[in-house]
Amino acid sequence: MNRVADRLRVGKGFRLSDVDPAGDDLGPGDHGQARLEIDQLEPEVALLHEKMWAESRRGGRKSILVVLQGMDTSGKGGATKVIDLLVDPLGFGVVSFGKPTDDEKAHHFLWRHQLQLPEPGRIRLFDRSHYEAVLVERVRDLTPADVWQGRYDEINEWEATLTDGGMRIVKCMLHISKEEQKERLRARLEDPTKHWKYNPADLEDRALWEDYMAAYQDALVRCSTEAAPWYVIPSNHKWRRDWLIAHLLHECMSGMGLAFPSHDFDVAAELERLERT
Amino acid sequence: MNRVADRLRVGKGFRLSDVDPAGDDLGPGDHGQARLEIDQLEPEVALLHEKMWAESRRGGRKSILVVLQGMDTSGKGGATKVIDLLVDPLGFGVVSFGKPTDDEKAHHFLWRHQLQLPEPGRIRLFDRSHYEAVLVERVRDLTPADVWQGRYDEINEWEATLTDGGMRIVKCMLHISKEEQKERLRARLEDPTKHWKYNPADLEDRALWEDYMAAYQDALVRCSTEAAPWYVIPSNHKWRRDWLIAHLLHECMSGMGLAFPSHDFDVAAELERLERT
Repeated sequence: MNRVADRLRVGKGFRLSDVDPAGDDLGPGDHGQARLEIDQLEPEVALLHEKMWAESRRGGRKSILVVLQGMDTSGKGGATKVIDLLVDPLGFGVVSFGKPTDDEKAHHFLWRHQLQLPEPGRIRLFDRSHYEAVLVERVRDLTPADVWQGRYDEINEWEATLTDGGMRIVKCMLHISKEEQKERLRARLEDPTKHWKYNPADLEDRALWEDYMAAYQDALVRCSTEAAPWYVIPSNHKWRRDWLIAHLLHECMSGMGLAFPSHDFDVAAELERLERT
Repeated sequence: MNRVADRLRVGKGFRLSDVDPAGDDLGPGDHGQARLEIDQLEPEVALLHEKMWAESRRGGRKSILVVLQGMDTSGKGGATKVIDLLVDPLGFGVVSFGKPTDDEKAHHFLWRHQLQLPEPGRIRLFDRSHYEAVLVERVRDLTPADVWQGRYDEINEWEATLTDGGMRIVKCMLHISKEEQKERLRARLEDPTKHWKYNPADLEDRALWEDYMAAYQDALVRCSTEAAPWYVIPSNHKWRRDWLIAHLLHECMSGMGLAFPSHDFDVAAELERLERT
């Protein structure tokens, strides 16, 4: 039970530097098998999503927030595609968080994320998230240390209120090696149709790799709570990353006690009414 | 060129009652062939979407709004799935418009739709839309006649400002026969896992079928403009509906002049910088 979640969950004594971004001991051994097993999950995940949606039509409060974090090129777009493949688009949405606007900066740092939370029945994916407030803002010195240091607790308290309200939060760090990032950036530069994805400033973040890993280490350990654990997804292999994300989502939804709600009409009487129309 | 759009576009002298909801003269002749041809469109539509997104990263203003309207069970969920299959989930979002809240009713009827428009580079799907203000509100007498009668012009003016700003608006009415709706409602009632989708009040709208068709006729004719035409999609066959929607979207995007933007960095120099990291 919950095998993938148990393998990937950030717990006591976790050290990011101990995680192998290749993840060779996890899941199937090749791309074809991974794809096959993901496709097999689709009907089950779709059915669970339909049940969550149906419950919400009768007042249910359950929803799911998926948080994706990772360095440039770590595969947030690809991971989004695999989730999109599994769930119903009517009840699924993606929000990408970039640099905050002046208006957003005038508010508390969690304000813009609060506005984008999923309604009951829905799955919302945050492509980058409130965690940037203790990652890029810390590494790039955009926020004074005494401010960002207080944010871990603020995040934990906020997330606890969300899970108390019926939301499941699945936080995934897509972990690639520094060498893998170099290859992916090189591939972007060598393919003219991918030049638009490249920004010379990407190399500035790359130069701060160790600082980012230290910031991730702290965020992962300080904010992996019972209510909202962090999972580190070895992501050097895209197909393994997709397989792990798909199983994590499936395991999460399987544990939510989702069921079609009972109805309050007489089926036979409604069939008769219908026939008369 | 634009064959599907030309066949389905609501033009001068259009009469909804002339449209055959089976659509037997449109597209391929069976489910398997339709699915194959939709799958073949996927890489092209995805590439066009990527180009639109890339343009927007460099200041481009193009976006797409897809409006889906239709009677209960006409297949708005299924049509959403086929679009979701073709585009990139990072740049795609769905908004379902239900009965307006008190807060929404206190505003102009277009207010809540304005808030949900796509940003540049994105595709947004409205599952029901501002057209409900001249459909259900008219048929159910929720709004005085002199108010809803003014809304056709208001909608046309609003949509024109949107298309002037770079948005394409693709408005689709999913057209099923009254008999087909009966079969779909019966199927819902006969499948316990679909009971949650059934609401006894669905039969009240069904009893007003002719009034709805009259309201659709007026909305389609009065609001099918050069800037934002209406398309009527014969939807008795789900696979034909999907094929038509997919081709309509593809034709729309093919006509937007989308291209990857030029970049302002020296690729060789960036490759060298990268190698030194």
